Amino acid sequence: MKLVVSFFLLATLLATSQGISHQIHLLKPHSGAAGHRIPGVSCLSWRLAVETNNIRGWDLVPEACENYVGHYMLGHQYRKDCNAVAYAAYQYAKSLSLPKDGKNVWVFDIDETALSNLPYYAQPENAFGAKEYNDTSFEEWEKKGAAPAVPAVLFLYKKLVNLGFKIVFISGKTATLRAITEKNLKNVGYLTWEKLILKQTSESGTTAVVYKSKKRKELEAQGYRILGNMGDQWSDLLGTHVGNQTFKVPDPMYYIS
Amino acid sequence: MKLVVSFFLLATLLATSQGISHQIHLLKPHSGAAGHRIPGVSCLSWRLAVETNNIRGWDLVPEACENYVGHYMLGHQYRKDCNAVAYAAYQYAKSLSLPKDGKNVWVFDIDETALSNLPYYAQPENAFGAKEYNDTSFEEWEKKGAAPAVPAVLFLYKKLVNLGFKIVFISGKTATLRAITEKNLKNVGYLTWEKLILKQTSESGTTAVVYKSKKRKELEAQGYRILGNMGDQWSDLLGTHVGNQTFKVPDPMYYIS
Repeated sequence: MKLVVSFFLLATLLATSQGISHQIHLLKPHSGAAGHRIPGVSCLSWRLAVETNNIRGWDLVPEACENYVGHYMLGHQYRKDCNAVAYAAYQYAKSLSLPKDGKNVWVFDIDETALSNLPYYAQPENAFGAKEYNDTSFEEWEKKGAAPAVPAVLFLYKKLVNLGFKIVFISGKTATLRAITEKNLKNVGYLTWEKLILKQTSESGTTAVVYKSKKRKELEAQGYRILGNMGDQWSDLLGTHVGNQTFKVPDPMYYIS
Repeated sequence: MKLVVSFFLLATLLATSQGISHQIHLLKPHSGAAGHRIPGVSCLSWRLAVETNNIRGWDLVPEACENYVGHYMLGHQYRKDCNAVAYAAYQYAKSLSLPKDGKNVWVFDIDETALSNLPYYAQPENAFGAKEYNDTSFEEWEKKGAAPAVPAVLFLYKKLVNLGFKIVFISGKTATLRAITEKNLKNVGYLTWEKLILKQTSESGTTAVVYKSKKRKELEAQGYRILGNMGDQWSDLLGTHVGNQTFKVPDPMYYIS
């Protein structure tokens, strides 16, 4: 039962490296949060159905689950769920014996994977995904380059770098945000990477699953082996050339196809 | 927000059709269940990681999560989670406009999908998957043909039959169990199907993902369109010819590759 012991140990380990998550945790749910709290069990099922890709193409967090999702995202469970994914990924990564040719790649998505937009989504007008997406205000937020890391993913990133993996970020962010995104990543602790692939204007009409499949295909054509692939959306993890193993980070706030 | 309203309505609808689930609910967790209850949050994360296929190839439910899994499986949350999957599947199925050529197929797995082995797994010596799998005692249980339906899946099955879908069961059960499996399915309400595909002795060395992919390929070669595919294991839903949309039913008790 070594796996189990280490699994519970992880919580302790990670709890010590979550300074930045406290910052998120202190954010208050918007003012209506205590108004119509629901028992939550059905929202639990909704979230599980979303995480397992049973519910697809959804627009908004159900109105009845707005407070549930807010509490989940700001509370301990989201962090623990992220830790569990990071730990499973690390156990997998450690188990591999890899050729030392510098071609071993781990792919990370950025939004809600490497970086957290929770300070943005916690704002009342965004309501953790229960209000209509506003691309103007989201871009304003992106331009600040102030997104904290998802602590568990940063923890994993550091372990992977130590194991000798090359890190490739593939993001649907527009390439015009390259400078600020690089600065943001470095500021929070992602200090090095092999590639940071952002979406060109010419690719703006492509769905994430098609765009990311194409980018992964190009990576493989360059001789890289995609051993791990981690994202908060199933469109990061499905399609083609998905990598040897995929890891789904929780995200009950929005759906990208 | 029509989707949301209907989502919460579903709980009420299904609550009235769960006679057989009460039978399961009355089963007592084994005697040690109250002995060392744990806070459960880390087990929640473990379950989410299992359901999202982040943790693979696991042997046993972690010792620390034995009681958590028992309470989950015997309690309301498992039923609600199943309802959510069935409801998502029904919404999807209803949305399709299908040619009326009798070739529209919905694939169901059997164990922990159409039928529940919970009366077996709730026994102290099986401990909801926290004790070593015993194929002798499991086969004895199978030979009784006494498995209840998973209520939400039976509910969906009936809706799909009404919508004109052909039902195909693909199971890893051995073909020697055909008669008893047919009787069991009919006894609990699965009255009709197009095919019931069981594993031949010659296929016993094949993994589920390979075996089921082959069977689905054969179905498509026969002109069937697999529009939906539902199972409790990712090996039901990954591989090739997986169908137009897949639906993962919860199962934190065991892993089949």
